[in-house]
Amino acid sequence: MKILPDSVSKLIEEFSKLPGIGPKTASRLTFYLLTKPDSDIESFGQAVLNLKKALTTCQSCFNITEESPCTICRDPERDKSIMMVVEEPLDIVALEKTGFNGLYHVLGGVISPIDGIGPENLRISQLLEKIKKWDPPAGELKSAKGRSSSGREIILATDPSLEGEATAMYIGREISKLKSQNSKLKSIQITRIARGLPVGGDLEYADEITLTRALEGRREY
Amino acid sequence: MKILPDSVSKLIEEFSKLPGIGPKTASRLTFYLLTKPDSDIESFGQAVLNLKKALTTCQSCFNITEESPCTICRDPERDKSIMMVVEEPLDIVALEKTGFNGLYHVLGGVISPIDGIGPENLRISQLLEKIKKWDPPAGELKSAKGRSSSGREIILATDPSLEGEATAMYIGREISKLKSQNSKLKSIQITRIARGLPVGGDLEYADEITLTRALEGRREY
Repeated sequence: MKILPDSVSKLIEEFSKLPGIGPKTASRLTFYLLTKPDSDIESFGQAVLNLKKALTTCQSCFNITEESPCTICRDPERDKSIMMVVEEPLDIVALEKTGFNGLYHVLGGVISPIDGIGPENLRISQLLEKIKKWDPPAGELKSAKGRSSSGREIILATDPSLEGEATAMYIGREISKLKSQNSKLKSIQITRIARGLPVGGDLEYADEITLTRALEGRREY
Repeated sequence: MKILPDSVSKLIEEFSKLPGIGPKTASRLTFYLLTKPDSDIESFGQAVLNLKKALTTCQSCFNITEESPCTICRDPERDKSIMMVVEEPLDIVALEKTGFNGLYHVLGGVISPIDGIGPENLRISQLLEKIKKWDPPAGELKSAKGRSSSGREIILATDPSLEGEATAMYIGREISKLKSQNSKLKSIQITRIARGLPVGGDLEYADEITLTRALEGRREY
């Protein structure tokens, strides 16, 4: 026997498709919405429908934006001598909170042979093209947090996962190739975000790979 | 500086309003949707908008339904001599899985003075009215799982929380009053769902109130 009205089952099904939401949570969310006034449900539904309507991809950094180039790429206050390579637009949200004031390049994923994603499926060629043309006037260089030189720098900020590390390694190698081919690019520094113990974490519970990386990355105090 | 496009911030905000979804999860869900094709987003948005459009409340049991009386109340196969009093429509979904084949009555909440919800805000008077008229022909009585008699029975199935217990106690007293006023209702049995250790649970981690209830409710083996 059908216990639930169709519209309720349908929304439970739709919620269940979202990551981390199982059938129980999906039911709870749906029944929660049922207790809300029509205007709230309307507002939620419209927000979903409008999500992508005004969106496009920035043709410079490949972040999602309402207008290309995006607000970050257009901003004259941004330090154009430092570029952070990230996997997804969501990473930018997290990194912006650190006060990072350079540019970004969104890869759109990581190299993952198991999912059939190779370097050609990511925006790596676009990154390399951008680097080839990357020639900021020396006068405009600003110093960024933790930078040793005031030259150009590329920070590889893919996830510290197996795929993220492999992708960073691949891109690092490709940029090195470019550098060896073009003397103008020689001064570009390639860095990788530090792997170590998360702040507030507990050394005793850290896995051995993280601990090894934390030791390797130790600094003078 | 605005990092996120308006439509993205808006959906994150809407997701954050849902119970158990914080700003981080809301961002993750929104960015997940961004990776999906337009048709999936359309389907989700429409499911939200259509949720309540075809819904009404069953005028007999107060469950949500597309048509009143609901499929459960209309079903001639249902045992009309047993009625389960629950807080919310979602409870019915869980109880149906146990194979319960009687009727329901949805209160629409619990007595909670702290939230300003008294008995008059729940569907208690409707329940009492229904009980007054509840006179199933003896021939139609069927025996239900775990019932001692084949008479009428009301199972108080509010949550085993402070408010749920208080509500069950209040309703139990009101039904007892009815029974003492009307000899026709005298045979109605009032029961409460068992409190005890959840199946698959661990005795060692159970709180003392649950353990006390489990001991009180013990049965001959």
